[in-house]
Parts: sequence; C-alpha cells; structure tokens
Amino acid sequence: MPDQPRVEFRTAPERYRHWRLATEGPVATLTMDVDEQGGIVSGYELKLNSYDLGVDIELYDAVQRLRFEHPEVRTVVITSGKPKIFCAGANIRMLAASPHGWKVNFCKFTNETRNGIEDATAHSGQTYLAAVNGTASGGGYELALACEHIMLIDDRSSAVSLPELPLLGVLPGTGGLTRVSDKRHVRRDLADYFSTRAEGVSGKKAVQWRLVDEAVPRPRWDETIAERAAELAARSSRPQDAEGVALTEVRKTRDDGAITYDHVEARLDRDTGKVDISVKGPQNDPPASIAEAAARSADFWPLAVTRELDDLILDLRTNETELGTWVFRTQGDPAQVLAYDNLLLTSREDWFANEVLHYLKRTLRRLDVTSRSLIAVIEPGSCFAGSLLELALAADRSFQLAGVFEDQDPDAEPATVTLGEANLGPLTMSNGLTRLQTRFWGDEAGYEAAAKRKKDALEAEDAADLGLITFAPDDIDWDEEIRIATEERASFSPDALTGLEANYRFAGPETMETKIFGRLSAWQNWIFNRPNAAGPDGALRRFGTGQRAVFDRKRV
Amino acid sequence: MPDQPRVEFRTAPERYRHWRLATEGPVATLTMDVDEQGGIVSGYELKLNSYDLGVDIELYDAVQRLRFEHPEVRTVVITSGKPKIFCAGANIRMLAASPHGWKVNFCKFTNETRNGIEDATAHSGQTYLAAVNGTASGGGYELALACEHIMLIDDRSSAVSLPELPLLGVLPGTGGLTRVSDKRHVRRDLADYFSTRAEGVSGKKAVQWRLVDEAVPRPRWDETIAERAAELAARSSRPQDAEGVALTEVRKTRDDGAITYDHVEARLDRDTGKVDISVKGPQNDPPASIAEAAARSADFWPLAVTRELDDLILDLRTNETELGTWVFRTQGDPAQVLAYDNLLLTSREDWFANEVLHYLKRTLRRLDVTSRSLIAVIEPGSCFAGSLLELALAADRSFQLAGVFEDQDPDAEPATVTLGEANLGPLTMSNGLTRLQTRFWGDEAGYEAAAKRKKDALEAEDAADLGLITFAPDDIDWDEEIRIATEERASFSPDALTGLEANYRFAGPETMETKIFGRLSAWQNWIFNRPNAAGPDGALRRFGTGQRAVFDRKRV
Repeated sequence: MPDQPRVEFRTAPERYRHWRLATEGPVATLTMDVDEQGGIVSGYELKLNSYDLGVDIELYDAVQRLRFEHPEVRTVVITSGKPKIFCAGANIRMLAASPHGWKVNFCKFTNETRNGIEDATAHSGQTYLAAVNGTASGGGYELALACEHIMLIDDRSSAVSLPELPLLGVLPGTGGLTRVSDKRHVRRDLADYFSTRAEGVSGKKAVQWRLVDEAVPRPRWDETIAERAAELAARSSRPQDAEGVALTEVRKTRDDGAITYDHVEARLDRDTGKVDISVKGPQNDPPASIAEAAARSADFWPLAVTRELDDLILDLRTNETELGTWVFRTQGDPAQVLAYDNLLLTSREDWFANEVLHYLKRTLRRLDVTSRSLIAVIEPGSCFAGSLLELALAADRSFQLAGVFEDQDPDAEPATVTLGEANLGPLTMSNGLTRLQTRFWGDEAGYEAAAKRKKDALEAEDAADLGLITFAPDDIDWDEEIRIATEERASFSPDALTGLEANYRFAGPETMETKIFGRLSAWQNWIFNRPNAAGPDGALRRFGTGQRAVFDRKRV
Repeated sequence: MPDQPRVEFRTAPERYRHWRLATEGPVATLTMDVDEQGGIVSGYELKLNSYDLGVDIELYDAVQRLRFEHPEVRTVVITSGKPKIFCAGANIRMLAASPHGWKVNFCKFTNETRNGIEDATAHSGQTYLAAVNGTASGGGYELALACEHIMLIDDRSSAVSLPELPLLGVLPGTGGLTRVSDKRHVRRDLADYFSTRAEGVSGKKAVQWRLVDEAVPRPRWDETIAERAAELAARSSRPQDAEGVALTEVRKTRDDGAITYDHVEARLDRDTGKVDISVKGPQNDPPASIAEAAARSADFWPLAVTRELDDLILDLRTNETELGTWVFRTQGDPAQVLAYDNLLLTSREDWFANEVLHYLKRTLRRLDVTSRSLIAVIEPGSCFAGSLLELALAADRSFQLAGVFEDQDPDAEPATVTLGEANLGPLTMSNGLTRLQTRFWGDEAGYEAAAKRKKDALEAEDAADLGLITFAPDDIDWDEEIRIATEERASFSPDALTGLEANYRFAGPETMETKIFGRLSAWQNWIFNRPNAAGPDGALRRFGTGQRAVFDRKRV
C-alpha cells in the first residue's frame, strides 16, 4: 500500500460518500451505496458494496448520530442501495495490498462498530434490522450478524456466505465465527460446512440453519420490512418527543507534535515512542438537571470529553503506530468529576444520560482493546475520581505521587484517587465486569475493602494499600521511576507487549465481545501473517488473478 | 533445525533420562534433573534444567503412571535435582532453531501435560506440590503454576519469573499469563510488572503478590515439604490398599503407510493428505466387576483403546503434519461399547474406573485441540455408541449412511448412532460442557430432544433430524460426498482451517483451559511468527549472542 494519508475519523452525514441516512418517525434506514471510486487509499475500487476503513468510518458516525441526534428512532433498518448485492464485505484488493498493521487496525475498528450496533440494540432501545436485499458475503454477512433480526430476500440468487476461508485463506474478521456459534447458535458442524462453501446458503435452508431469521419473497419484501420495523420499535422505551442532541464537529488542532481538543491534549514524543495525554476535568458545576445538560448539547462536559477521547484513541491507533506507550494524566477538581457523574447516574432513566454513560463505556472499552501500553500518572492537581479514575483502572500500571513535589509546590494538596458510583457498575468492560471487579478478580475481600472507601479521597499510600494503584513513589524517586517505566516499555518487543496486554487486561469470564477481540482476532492476526495468506503465492494475494494459491500444507 | 527424527511418545521410568520418580507411601517425588546432552534433537544443550519435547514426554509418562500404577500416592512433589535452579523453562536455543510448527506443537503438548497435572489434583485425589528449590523461570515457573501449592525457597537468590517478554520477545507459552491472572489472582498491574522483570520476584514479595504460596527458609525446607505433602495427602480419598494397574508398553507397529495397534489402525494417505483411522469396539463382554476389569490391567478394552488413541494423536500431530484430515471409523457392536461404558459409569467411585474415565476425557480433549480437520464416517458394522460416539461428536463433520451398501451387503443392518450415559456428563470438553451440550449450545429444545433418545439405535435419517450427525447420504451419493469433503478440505489453507476449527469447536463458555488453548496460544503463535521474535534480528534468535534484538516498533 502506498503512502497512507493521515486518517480522519470526524465526519457528518452531509459528507458521506457511501451511506444514506433517512429517518421516518421511529424508523431510520441506513442505506449502503458505496462509491466505487471513494476508497480511503488509492489503488482499489470498492466494487459490489465492498468496504474499506473510510466506508466504516461513516457507518460508525451514523450509528453514533442515531443514538444522540434521534431519540425518536427505535428501529434502524440496514439495507443496500445496489441491485442484487447487499454487501460483499471488506474489499479484498485493499486487504491484499495493506500492511499487516493496517489490516489488524481496520478489523479492530469495524469490530467496535459492530459491537456498537449491538450495544444500541441492547441498551438504547434502538434495534437494528438487517434487510438483506441481495447477497451478503463475508463482512457483508457479518454486518447483518450484528443486527438483531436478519431478513434475507428469497429470490433464488441472494445468499449469505462466509467465503473467507475457501476464497482467501483467512477467517471472517469481524466476529462472524463467534456470532454464528454463540449468538445465532448455528450448530458447529453446519457452521463449519457453511464457512467452507463460498457460494453460501440461501432461502429456507438459511432459516433452518439459523443463519437468518426469515427468507422473504420479493413481493412481500417492503411490507415485511415495515412490519418487522414496527414490531421492533414497539419494544422500545425511547422517548417520543425528546429533542436530539446535535453532534457538532469535535474541535481539534493537530500537528506533528500535538493533538489538541478543548478538554484533552496529547503530546507526541517520537524520540521516546510515547504520548502524554492530559484530560481536563469540568471547569464548572454540573447543570442542575439532565434537561439542562441536554441543552448544553455537545458541550456538556462528559459528552465533550468522551468524544474527544474517542477521536484521540482512533487517531493515535491508526496514524501513530510507532508511539507504543500512552501516559494518562488528569487535571482538575475531583469533586466536580463526581458531581457530573452523579448527575448522570441519578438520571439514568433519561435517554440522554443513558446515551452519555454508554458512550463513555464504549470509549473506555476501546481503550481496553488498544494495542498500546497504558500508564496512568497521578499527581497533585489531578482528578482521578469516578469516571476519570477509569483511565487509571484501565492502565497497565499506575503511579501516584506520595506527598507533593517539594521543590515546585510544597503547599499543594497531595494527589488523590477517589472511587465513585461510576466505578461500581455502569462502565463495564467487554468481559461484563467493571474494571474494579476485574482488578480484584478472585479477591472478594480486596474488592470489598476498596469499594467501602467510596468517596474517600485516597492519598498514595492508602491507594497502594488498597490495591487501587501500582506504585507510590515519592518526590525523590518520581521522575526516575516514570522515566524508567516508559523507556523500558519502549525497549520491549511491541508484538509481545500487545499479546501480554491482551491477556492480562481481561481476567475472569469471557463474553462474545472478549472472544471476538481475544480469540478470534488473535487467530486472524496469526493467519494474516502467514505466507499461506499474505505471502506472494498466498490466497489473499492470488485472489482474482486466476492463479491458485500455493499452500505450505503443514498443519501448525 | 536439522532433520527431525520421528518422535516416539512411549517411554517408561527405567528409560527416563531427565526425571526421577520415587514414591514413599502416599507421597511421590518427581525430581527434574535434566541430562544436558539428552536433547531430543541435536544442536543444543539442555542447560539449567531447561527442557525440550523429550523432557516433557517423560513428565507426561510419569504423571500418567502415578495415576494408574500408584493408587496409594496422594501427593506428588515436583522438585529439582540441580543446585540453585528449579527449572529454566523451555530451552531457548531449541526454540530459536525450531520451525514454527514444531514450537506450536511443543507448546500444545506441554500445555496438555500441565492441564493433566491440574486434572490429577482436581479429579484424582493426587495433588501436586511444587517445591521450588531454586530459580524457576519461564516454563519453569509455569510448571510450578500447574501445581496446587507452590513453596519457594527463601535464600536471597531463588526467584520466580516470566522473562519471556523482556528477554525473548515472546509470551510465556504454557499458560503462565492465564494462571497468574485467573488461577492465582495476581492483580493485573502487578502481573504486568512481574512479566516485564527478567529477574523475577522472590521471598516475601512473591508471597504478597500471590505468585507463590509460601517462601520457606532453607533450614525449614525439608520439614515443610513433608508437612505440606502430608496435609495435601490427608485431603485425598484415594484407596490405601488397592493394587496399581501397570501401564505396559502399548503394542504398535509403524511404517510409512500405517500405524497399527491392537484396537486402532491408521492408514496414512499422503496423496490426499488424510489419515483413515479405524477404532475397534470391544470383542467380548465386559468383565463382571470393576475389580475384574482392573485385573485385566492395561488390556481392559477402554483403557487399551484410550492409550492407543492417545499415542496415535500424539504421533500424527508431531510426525505427520502434512496429513491435514483425519477420518474416523469404528467397527464393532454398539451394545458392547455401551456395556463397557456402563461398567465404568456404575463404578465411578472406584479409583480405577475414575482414572479410565478421566483419561478418556483428557484424550478426547486432546483431539478437540488438534489442528487437523476431523471427519466421522458412520457405516454399517460401526459402533458409534456412548464413549465411541464422542469421536463423531468431536468431528467437524459427520456422515452417516442412509440405508446400506446395496451392492456389497444388501442384508446388513443399517448404520446407527446411539447416545448413552457417557455422552451426557462425564466426558466434558475444555469448556466444561459435554460435546452434546456444546453442539446444542443455545438450543435447549434440541438438546432435550436428542437426550431423550438415549439408548435408541438411530438410523441416519433420525440422527440427522435430531442434529446428531451432519449429513446422511445414501449408497448412491456416499463415496462421492465423502471424497469431495476430504478433497475439498485438502485444498483449503491449512492455517485458516486451524483457526476456523479452533473457533467453532468451542461454543459457549470459556474456562482457563480454553483461554490457554484459544486466546493465549493464538497470540503466542502470532508472536512466534513475527520478525520481532523469529526473524534473523528478532529477540528469540539474538538471545545469548550479545547483540540486542532489532524491533519494528509499529504496534499492531
């Protein structure tokens, strides 16, 4: 792949090239109609509604806007604007030409978007319906799998398929295997057969095997969509007459050395391979009510800071792959953070509070699956409390200053961390547990001891004793310890660190989401990296050339 | 690595080069004292009690013998025969020189052996105690982690460590990360720190961080071992006066085209890349009692056939990596299989019956994690019933003949499959479910409908309707369908098949074991395969050369 441009994740419906978003009362329709010439990188055409990162950035934007800007929408129909093809999945020439890291990062983002679709269905009363009006293959079928209900047109030609293995020598990369077995409960031998059959399965057999929910003949297609959409909408408790919150463009300046938002700033240190990220707490009291908060719209601090963090994570992950360590600091008044948390948590039945909380949850999950070492640095003047404490709990290690910086500000208040309600339930990780539960997995007493200190501003020694932070160096050792930690991290194999972190961050139970990011992605990454797929004679490179792939037949 | 000799898994204590097995009443001691010159392949020395596949084959043999030959043993102490070093883990020069497939297969086998140690502790009343009398690094510490209780000598020099990441740029490959977090509940940030610290952690800190259970000063070392061994033995319900069952050498002939045992035969078809495996059911009635069964010793059919299958799986996995599809057939009387099952299942409190059942369970689990496509072919004269039906339930696909072979034997009884008690509980997979539960994961009604037909000999149509088999072709289509299935399988990317099977075989919940084989192994395989580890400038290749590894710093 030639020089990759810096990828920009901010977009808006008026700029979409590949999707159309229309709403009519409680039903929105997202129509995929990919512009063949609109690849995010040059060198391939996006034929047959195939997609690349650029197409998926628009889908992500649409899914987010539907939640915030359209409280009235209760069902989202995903369908195709092209005849006979729903979606052909990820573009193969793009995959074949991409370096390994690009493929992996692309799959991660598309996975997150599909998880977001399921999250909207589960937690937002916004249920997704796949109206598969033509063949859905590979990532196209996986997109349908993320929807709650799959309708397949029964026209003797449209089928669903996962042709990655037979055609490309790789796996479906966006959760297909996991959702086929663990969400749709397709029997394992049928799933195996289905996944080796490039032409897929259609009609009644697709229904019998549970691959889709119904096969609908063309004459009844439109009316059935309307019926199903209405049925799904009827389940929802979204408000009828609330006003949406416009997701105005996130303000951002970016140059080679820094990315700056209103509340978040990142300094990129290319010499040491790290990014120093600083997050500002709220500058003022929370609004008196959640209605007033919604009136502040995208400037409401929790929403604003979450959007900035979200954009920053995506930007750094995609554009700054050599910056392997992210160091998080916060700045502000812990009491204010807790006050904002409190407003959200006491208003959870309100649709907007609910959306903000779930968005923060998803953004923190994005951090958890990020292949960068995460370090939290807790200094005087910081506000690692409640929702912002999650940044420290998400970190692979944390350092909290014991005492103060004697030379700089001997009269400062020492740094503290404060557990709040936000740490005890709503912001679950992909494994279904909170970060605090994961931290104390198998140590009930440790969990209880920490949770009991909720609302106490804990100085370093206390926080260390309770196991909430990793290290509590004093003024004298501080700079040295943090320098060593970051320099040492930069000296290790980046691949091994990625594997280590992917294992240690998720103690305890597994869910479909952790299986997708842990098991399936790891296998896919391995396969992507093997000559049988990505080598010059591999299946991915040979696809469409008329030449068959040459395989090393050894089973590993 | 130069020409690999064919690996032989059969061994016996009198032939061990690396371990000493001694028993004294209820306590056995397994002393690791690796012969530096005894590598299974030439080209490296096994210094510092480091191990290779040959060392681990002996350990596996010892663990098996302890269960069958030593009903009196209730505690197994694992310790080192070398001064100051417990075990340095897998030999690094061996790893650096090995092809990818060898490393992966080696890790899989060592993982299975460590799981077997935990299985003995959990199900056999034979509890393992790690007496870590010197430094335990990498796989050495992972061996200790598989034990129920870890004693570390407190001598100011001995430590436990996982130095794979800092020294070699890979991950601990035998469950270390998973056991640290999910078994020993080491806090994730401490685990992260520990795994980046090549010198490890010793003494009180190792206890505080839960890395070991106790740190014991040298003067109290021997007496503490004796105390702990006695405490652990006191928990056991193993019999005091039973006679052991000698595991006489499995009879086997092998040439380039076939591997033949008393009850199992494998024909190796190098042209089509498949192995045809035939398993014979019992030739006679079961003994009248479990005592009589034990008197038959290693010739008792269920034990004999399990040992043969176990050896065959290991042989083919290691020595025949290009034979990618295994086709299972059985031959015999289904009623006899069920009668043997019944003897075992009604005698489960008997130590010997218990051992045979758990051994069969472990062997079937070995099949589940084998990176070969598994196909079951169910024909007239076969005995896919009860325990042997598990072979079909473990398969990725199964074919059952509808009717009979009209030309060959028109009067034959049609092929049947029969569910028995053995399919409904004792033979769990790594995910903690039976193969039948996994098959019907999320389909309670399907499970109930099948289970209700227990003991019914089901012909092909019935079995297909109940979802117990995949396809039921008749005489006319039979040969063609099976030929296509196996030929097609041989045409796919072996790597993609491995990933597909590793995902579909384990629907539903995850356990420490599935995490080790699914998540951790997949990451490790990926890392093993990356230039940062295995490339000419990678950490694994550069270790010990005095030159630092050169890393591509891009995070993937």
